Amino acid sequence: MPQLRLALAQVDATVGALTANADLVRVRTREAAGAGAHLVAFPEMVLTGYPVEDLALRSSFVEASRAALEQLAADLASDGLGDLPVVVGYLDRGGDPASLTTAQGPADRRGQHGRGGGALPKGLPQNCAAVLCGGEVVARYAKHFLPTYGVFDEFRVFVPGDALALVRVRGVDVALAICEDLWQDGGPVAQCREAGAELLLVLNGSPFERGKDGVRLDLARRRADEAGCPLAYLNAVGGQDELVFDGGSLVVAADGTLLARAPRFTEHLLVLDVDAPARAADRELRGDEVVRVVSEEPAAPRAPLPAPITEPLDDVAALWSALVLGLGDYVRKNGFTRVALGLSGGIDSAVVASLAVDALGPGGLTGVSLPSSYSSGHSRDDADDLAQRLGCDYRVVPIAPVVDAFTEHLAEAVELSSVAGENLQARVRGTLLMALSNSEGHLVLATSNMSELSVGYATLYGDSVGGFAPLKDVPKLLVWELARWRNADAGR
Amino acid sequence: MPQLRLALAQVDATVGALTANADLVRVRTREAAGAGAHLVAFPEMVLTGYPVEDLALRSSFVEASRAALEQLAADLASDGLGDLPVVVGYLDRGGDPASLTTAQGPADRRGQHGRGGGALPKGLPQNCAAVLCGGEVVARYAKHFLPTYGVFDEFRVFVPGDALALVRVRGVDVALAICEDLWQDGGPVAQCREAGAELLLVLNGSPFERGKDGVRLDLARRRADEAGCPLAYLNAVGGQDELVFDGGSLVVAADGTLLARAPRFTEHLLVLDVDAPARAADRELRGDEVVRVVSEEPAAPRAPLPAPITEPLDDVAALWSALVLGLGDYVRKNGFTRVALGLSGGIDSAVVASLAVDALGPGGLTGVSLPSSYSSGHSRDDADDLAQRLGCDYRVVPIAPVVDAFTEHLAEAVELSSVAGENLQARVRGTLLMALSNSEGHLVLATSNMSELSVGYATLYGDSVGGFAPLKDVPKLLVWELARWRNADAGR
Repeated sequence: MPQLRLALAQVDATVGALTANADLVRVRTREAAGAGAHLVAFPEMVLTGYPVEDLALRSSFVEASRAALEQLAADLASDGLGDLPVVVGYLDRGGDPASLTTAQGPADRRGQHGRGGGALPKGLPQNCAAVLCGGEVVARYAKHFLPTYGVFDEFRVFVPGDALALVRVRGVDVALAICEDLWQDGGPVAQCREAGAELLLVLNGSPFERGKDGVRLDLARRRADEAGCPLAYLNAVGGQDELVFDGGSLVVAADGTLLARAPRFTEHLLVLDVDAPARAADRELRGDEVVRVVSEEPAAPRAPLPAPITEPLDDVAALWSALVLGLGDYVRKNGFTRVALGLSGGIDSAVVASLAVDALGPGGLTGVSLPSSYSSGHSRDDADDLAQRLGCDYRVVPIAPVVDAFTEHLAEAVELSSVAGENLQARVRGTLLMALSNSEGHLVLATSNMSELSVGYATLYGDSVGGFAPLKDVPKLLVWELARWRNADAGR
Repeated sequence: MPQLRLALAQVDATVGALTANADLVRVRTREAAGAGAHLVAFPEMVLTGYPVEDLALRSSFVEASRAALEQLAADLASDGLGDLPVVVGYLDRGGDPASLTTAQGPADRRGQHGRGGGALPKGLPQNCAAVLCGGEVVARYAKHFLPTYGVFDEFRVFVPGDALALVRVRGVDVALAICEDLWQDGGPVAQCREAGAELLLVLNGSPFERGKDGVRLDLARRRADEAGCPLAYLNAVGGQDELVFDGGSLVVAADGTLLARAPRFTEHLLVLDVDAPARAADRELRGDEVVRVVSEEPAAPRAPLPAPITEPLDDVAALWSALVLGLGDYVRKNGFTRVALGLSGGIDSAVVASLAVDALGPGGLTGVSLPSSYSSGHSRDDADDLAQRLGCDYRVVPIAPVVDAFTEHLAEAVELSSVAGENLQARVRGTLLMALSNSEGHLVLATSNMSELSVGYATLYGDSVGGFAPLKDVPKLLVWELARWRNADAGR
């Protein structure tokens, strides 16, 4: 049975940062070459970052992605890595408009870029994978299924592909697929078996949801069975705006055995030896016109590397890690180094502050206590105590004098209702935090949780102030669970 | 040549207000019956309002729309209007999942509602039109082309239809189409001629853009020629969140002659007599299986009504009307009666205040002058003068005392940068306006224009405060044009 040493590079790309992302690929490819890999793979759209959303509709960005891909192929060769085939996700254009009649009718798909026939670009944007080798792009694949639900909007910005792509590496025929292609019935996965694929390699940008890692493993097992060959599931890692990609890349054998699994919430190069079934008979059936041959000669047999199988994380531990990664990447990718938030002595701000310190270190956080004349001594003490334990910058700014100035002054023009008075306090706090941010360059964090936000229990321009709200998708009871978990973890 | 008296009811529906929208239909149908109409039509999704966006993904809302349609049919009959066929847009479910293989493959479309096969609803949401007559729904049509660009996201929430719908009214075969069906080549419009359609009726929810009314007329002429019959283009009117539907419904003959045109930016019932070409030969070709016969007997000949052709509006006049309608409907549809804004003495706030008074009357506006210690006497005088001319409620609240309280107080915790000081003033103004809004129930209007917003020249939580920003899509030079136009118009 031919053997392939596969390197899955679970990396954290940044949307739009073409050069930095290409550098990630070069660094990890060198590392994979050092580990003796025969094939190295990177996540969905690693070169552009993912999701690119409406950047896909800017033809200058599409061209920049194409040029970056060609440059990357050349750079890998000049790095001395030209012999090692590298699979990278990127943004391309393709989908000859004339061929689109099979989908919704050509006009409808053209309509994406404006009404009517108009001036068509040379092909429309596609979510693609390419195989780089010998300084060139030797194969391309376009995603077939475009998710357009939940956090996904791909039908809006991409046109689907409809062709299979197989590359032969060391005599093993590797089929490519991208993310949603794996989740939907039909499409390239269903065609793998009859196409004689000996390994199915799936590039993903699959966002974190609670419990999803188990669902992914089950799915990979089912699809490996359907394809009749091992399946390598490579996921992105990192935060991108509201999304967190959690990694957890894995490889299963055709019979569903879990062969290797990478850790979650961190970059990782997963290297393992995969035994691929030889399928000469199927190959003859399909003919060889769909396969791009990179290398025919099988790898010399060697003792397989020990393949790591990372244990699954506990649910709350995974959530904590997701929040830390999402917060940290949002801050870093947007050019900040520090955050500020109001410390009320309550649980929400305590959890957000702890997340911030885990993400950025104690030097990355300024906590501000903003007591009103109604704040209890107890809540002030709790805020002091938290700041001390976290070791962060800490300041106290009582808000009463400013609130008083507002209310006395406003009295001439308007009679303040009691709700207006409460909201006024929250807005004075928000304004104080923004003055701090303006002067010293912090990103302000909002501390509202999902339960409060879902019922509108927040003051617009008050406690809702901030550039990022780490708990916006975390309901209150789970905030308490997170706090308990973090306290217990600190004691371990 | 058979004659049909057509009534196009250009009405202002509200998203989600099923009962109120049905009442609109009943009132206008009675009016159309009084005018002797043979057929009355209402805009795209009039029953649910448009666009419904993710409401379409709530099956309870789909069922409510279906039930409201049945109820409306019954109510029209009990109103004594059962003999008059009524065409209404609404939200339905259809699109047997098994039949969707012709589009993107069934799994992809199911994926709209979550991954995998899962529990499928009984049919997926569709943007539909129905013909009501005799207390029943006698024909249904589902939109073929789903725009998914610009302000539209229909592929996300609907599945496309693929069948033609023809109804025979007084011996005239009327084909139905919905909005994007007219803009894209192919589809139901292309099939009209061979299907023997004698009138093409298009229900629209087509949002205002500058210059679009001329484009629509050209398009209607081209499609009437293609269909070989008269074309009735019925548009919605009214504001819905960021969109303004501008009406301007029109009817063209098969040869492109403009037969009638309704005014824009106002509700209107356009009644006219249309001469439809008799196409017995084409009818024989298609057979009658696709047509739903409402009434065979041609209408008795009568002298045609004079058909109004409203003159086109000047570009800036149309824009002013669009802004007034959009603002007024946003306020009313969200349950407010009054707005408040800061009057700086500058052009942006002057234009917004004038729009507000045109939309809501002088009693609907509270203008607040919020001078700082840096405001010139001149700008204060301009604000006073404007408020006097508009006849609105007017208050003056100098902000210096509050700004001073902030800066003195903050000095202990942070050294304010000069930008922070400027932003602080804007935030004090925002907080004062929100305190007024909280206490008295105004919707606060933000006065930033598109040029400022596009370059980030606004203070977050400061002058960006407010529930609606009338000028957010209006660049600065156009703000001046609007001001000049409004001054000239006041003098007319």
